[in-house]
Amino acid sequence: MELNPALYLIPVNISNAPLRDTLPEGNLDILRHLHHIIVENVRTARRFLKRCDPGFDIRSVTFYELNRHTDLGEVSTYLEPLRRGEAIGVMSEAGCPAVADPGALPVSLAQREGFKVVPLVGPSSILMSLMASGFNGQGFCFNGYLPIEQKEREKKLRDLEILSKKNDMTQIFIETPYRNNRMIAAITSVLRGDTLLCVACDITDPENETILTMPVSKWKQAKYDYDKRPAIFLIYAPGRNIVTR
Amino acid sequence: MELNPALYLIPVNISNAPLRDTLPEGNLDILRHLHHIIVENVRTARRFLKRCDPGFDIRSVTFYELNRHTDLGEVSTYLEPLRRGEAIGVMSEAGCPAVADPGALPVSLAQREGFKVVPLVGPSSILMSLMASGFNGQGFCFNGYLPIEQKEREKKLRDLEILSKKNDMTQIFIETPYRNNRMIAAITSVLRGDTLLCVACDITDPENETILTMPVSKWKQAKYDYDKRPAIFLIYAPGRNIVTR
Repeated sequence: MELNPALYLIPVNISNAPLRDTLPEGNLDILRHLHHIIVENVRTARRFLKRCDPGFDIRSVTFYELNRHTDLGEVSTYLEPLRRGEAIGVMSEAGCPAVADPGALPVSLAQREGFKVVPLVGPSSILMSLMASGFNGQGFCFNGYLPIEQKEREKKLRDLEILSKKNDMTQIFIETPYRNNRMIAAITSVLRGDTLLCVACDITDPENETILTMPVSKWKQAKYDYDKRPAIFLIYAPGRNIVTR
Repeated sequence: MELNPALYLIPVNISNAPLRDTLPEGNLDILRHLHHIIVENVRTARRFLKRCDPGFDIRSVTFYELNRHTDLGEVSTYLEPLRRGEAIGVMSEAGCPAVADPGALPVSLAQREGFKVVPLVGPSSILMSLMASGFNGQGFCFNGYLPIEQKEREKKLRDLEILSKKNDMTQIFIETPYRNNRMIAAITSVLRGDTLLCVACDITDPENETILTMPVSKWKQAKYDYDKRPAIFLIYAPGRNIVTR
């Protein structure tokens, strides 16, 4: 198999689930034929490739590191193989590359020069949590991290609740894992009791995956401990069409 | 293998690509053990199962149809197997179920009764187009369909451009395939020349996939014909951090 000269966007597992449960087999065919891969961290990228295939010939791959230490002006040079007609891969640390991570920069540069960009299928906590939340609506927004400062965070949460109700949209955001419990406490202290909150944790993990939707009033009374687990938060302020609770 | 009593959300292919290229093998293990599946259309659901495995024992499956003809008050009865301790699947016509489709209702009901909901990995045109667009930013919004009436549509497009710039967010929307060209014409006539437009078409199709990002000013001069092809549209009005064009 000869790969087309394109930028392949290669998802990485987000839990310890067997790879065959969260990544299409076809992704491996492409990985095996790549000699240039843009990664966030070379060590973990190597580990992923070895996990995909213990016989993976890692010496045949040149890695290009792209993270917060990278001089962004250099990233354009990472595309040299593409300019010579060779395929390049982009991987992030976990999940789908180029969604709210530095991988978007080489994609943007490749698009600008007219190169083909090929996204592959893989696990996304944003999309999978949305599927499992049960939140219907005309659409959804992913907001990344909320402000850390308490007053600003509370204002942002209220704004998201209003936007959800007004536009009938699910509002999604994330938090650093050691602050998950505090985030839930902030949500239950600030938002309306009938607003729905979904907390999705350890997505795809066969043992620990927990995806729970309840009204804020129930979360207020619930016992939970989500600290140090990868989590994502979704709020939905019921409009006309939602199932009443 | 005995399945846990849970609601499994099962993605379906979105192109004629070999299934091994877009769906994890593990999804099939779960499908094979399901005796109850909520589907949008029984005929196409049967076809998908046969494509997954020509030897699939379709007679062992009870299908529950959920589409615009369904009495939504009946949907709660679809969860009876779950109440007896049996697993249920949810499939849509294409892509990931329960994202902007009727599948969200049984998920919402299952969450309400405290049942486990398990999302599986599969192709999503929203997420894959976002990956390949190269649009960075603090987040993104999926807006579903825009208004059809010309004046309202133009206003909505301008609003999305302003929101993208103000919040540094990618704005995503869809159109019925026979109006794709008109949508691009509306975008190029209404939005700023330096706003970026990505049109993603036939995602995952090995022959026809086209995912192209250009400034509106270039789209204006471009030749294109996207009519009758499944497409998704993304706009991003560059803020401070974007690569200049």
